[in-house]
Amino acid sequence: MSRRFWNELTTRLEPYTPGEQPQIEKLLKLNTNESPYPPSPRVLDALRAVDGDDLLRYPDPASKELRQTVADHHGIHVDSVFVGNGSDEVLSHVFQGLLKQQRELLFPDISYSFYPVWCQLHDVLYRQIPLREDFSLHPDDYDSSAAAVILPNPNAPTGLLLPLEGIRQFLDAAPDRLLVVDEAYIDFGGQSAIPLLAQYDNLLVVQTLSKSRALAGLRIGLAFGSPELIEGLVRIKDSFNSYPLDVVAQRAGVEAYRDTAWFAQCCRKVVESRESLSRNLAALGFEVLPSSANFVFVKHASVSGKEIFEALREQGVIVRRWDKPRISEYLRISVGTGEQCAGLLTTLESVLAVLKAKG
Amino acid sequence: MSRRFWNELTTRLEPYTPGEQPQIEKLLKLNTNESPYPPSPRVLDALRAVDGDDLLRYPDPASKELRQTVADHHGIHVDSVFVGNGSDEVLSHVFQGLLKQQRELLFPDISYSFYPVWCQLHDVLYRQIPLREDFSLHPDDYDSSAAAVILPNPNAPTGLLLPLEGIRQFLDAAPDRLLVVDEAYIDFGGQSAIPLLAQYDNLLVVQTLSKSRALAGLRIGLAFGSPELIEGLVRIKDSFNSYPLDVVAQRAGVEAYRDTAWFAQCCRKVVESRESLSRNLAALGFEVLPSSANFVFVKHASVSGKEIFEALREQGVIVRRWDKPRISEYLRISVGTGEQCAGLLTTLESVLAVLKAKG
Repeated sequence: MSRRFWNELTTRLEPYTPGEQPQIEKLLKLNTNESPYPPSPRVLDALRAVDGDDLLRYPDPASKELRQTVADHHGIHVDSVFVGNGSDEVLSHVFQGLLKQQRELLFPDISYSFYPVWCQLHDVLYRQIPLREDFSLHPDDYDSSAAAVILPNPNAPTGLLLPLEGIRQFLDAAPDRLLVVDEAYIDFGGQSAIPLLAQYDNLLVVQTLSKSRALAGLRIGLAFGSPELIEGLVRIKDSFNSYPLDVVAQRAGVEAYRDTAWFAQCCRKVVESRESLSRNLAALGFEVLPSSANFVFVKHASVSGKEIFEALREQGVIVRRWDKPRISEYLRISVGTGEQCAGLLTTLESVLAVLKAKG
Repeated sequence: MSRRFWNELTTRLEPYTPGEQPQIEKLLKLNTNESPYPPSPRVLDALRAVDGDDLLRYPDPASKELRQTVADHHGIHVDSVFVGNGSDEVLSHVFQGLLKQQRELLFPDISYSFYPVWCQLHDVLYRQIPLREDFSLHPDDYDSSAAAVILPNPNAPTGLLLPLEGIRQFLDAAPDRLLVVDEAYIDFGGQSAIPLLAQYDNLLVVQTLSKSRALAGLRIGLAFGSPELIEGLVRIKDSFNSYPLDVVAQRAGVEAYRDTAWFAQCCRKVVESRESLSRNLAALGFEVLPSSANFVFVKHASVSGKEIFEALREQGVIVRRWDKPRISEYLRISVGTGEQCAGLLTTLESVLAVLKAKG
């Protein structure tokens, strides 16, 4: 037995490691930024209406109804909307079909850790631009002669938002440089760049239904851009997998967009929960970055991030931490329900007392 | 507006065109080889048991329960089983991670028309080997110094089966050449090569739940191989999309494998339907290739394939045809229920009468 059939790419890849999904009951899981609230009941109705005839047939390869629903929601043309099997699949297509160029792709040194992996997979030339000391992101730091820039907004794992004016600066600075804004967390306090598509053809916006629309289990991602950019992505998609979205995901996604009241209420509750969690964490001695996302990025004044992470884990509370330069002292904590946040705070309090006594 | 952000790949791709999925009622759709019978009722029970908490969380990124269920079904180790978002995604990973080599990949000139598209997408060096005059496939025609061979078995669109002895010949002829057997249609009359995995590490078998398990709507594909080959595919998958299978597909797939009686009965009915359809088509003047799949590949003695195809379409009967060398006179017709086959035959009879009168 051997790896002699692996090619050079397969051998050199360093795959992405997602936040763990332990199949254990009774865990307080605050590590992958899922919605703490379930999706709209209309989503469940749509799911239960699926019958055997729907399952035996191939789904619509173009996900037309879902794309039209999303387009109507944003008041844009359906040809400006692309869907994929989660925003990770969408982003992979973006890297392969748009960001792989002769010139460099730029992205922040601290951002979604899947970006360098897609660069490896698709052989994309890239350079990481350091965030400032306070983790803020400045358009001036990005070379206007680069092929493209990609950035999460709000950034992950910091949670910091670049206001729309900053996005506009990026776009104005370099009309021939493509800007990809990865808006996975935009609904928790930011303003989407989608309206800027009317003025700029060097903009692509990526979103997901996994966070604010509570459908991480169904894998639905979106991209918004000029019809030309979307057509480029369709060419990649149609050369990769004709039917990326199953029939259940397509129908559930439609209902998740139609129930705007449910969506607004869930986002509002998460934001309230985040603000109260941030205050309480500060009271426990944490520095809390001002978050516009459904997570907070925090560092304790006196106890190491690694120790807190491990002690929480022993108590059945899972948060996220990266053993990487600049952020190894930080923890990223997903915002849960009021009850989940209270559980976290109680555990943190006792954990910190023990660690401080030790130290 | 322009395509200036497309890269060289996006510009030169010629995407795959799947069989059309018209959203029109009352069509007799016999063009994409779906199961004419619905999936097991246990699949629908599993789907309806999915609740809001399941949807808000990310699914198991490794699809462990599904892979274990499939492994148990075949009596092999779970480390020999890979799953993806339909066998098209699985195959794309195979092309990118295993078939892209310094030496050539070989496949039949008449086979799944997505193969050359994946070669374009992933820049794979390939050569097509002509099937013999009667569309038969001979292991001797394939250079043993090639990097790999991929072939559908039964072949599509011909429906012809290469018996297991032929697969063994491929494997014995070149232990360092990888053989990928694409068994989308194996359950309708062939013997799977999966048991050969115990003896050969140069074999990868790809299957799908879209045909014999009636789950085209849910997008579930499989690969079977040595743990080393599967680990290579996992490296590609984990560098592309952490969560390719949603929670509904994972649970439905498990139940589709558990209900073996339902599966066996559906396959038996399709085979009976195919045999009777083949006899009836022969009686109408068609040459019918002996099929081991859930479709038949047929050519009429006196009327052109294009004319029949178009006349059927006008009557609301959709079959598949390729405007390609060697097969442009042929139609590929999916095997439907007894009632659907009867409908097809009635329409064909009247269509042929009209076309013969014209000609």
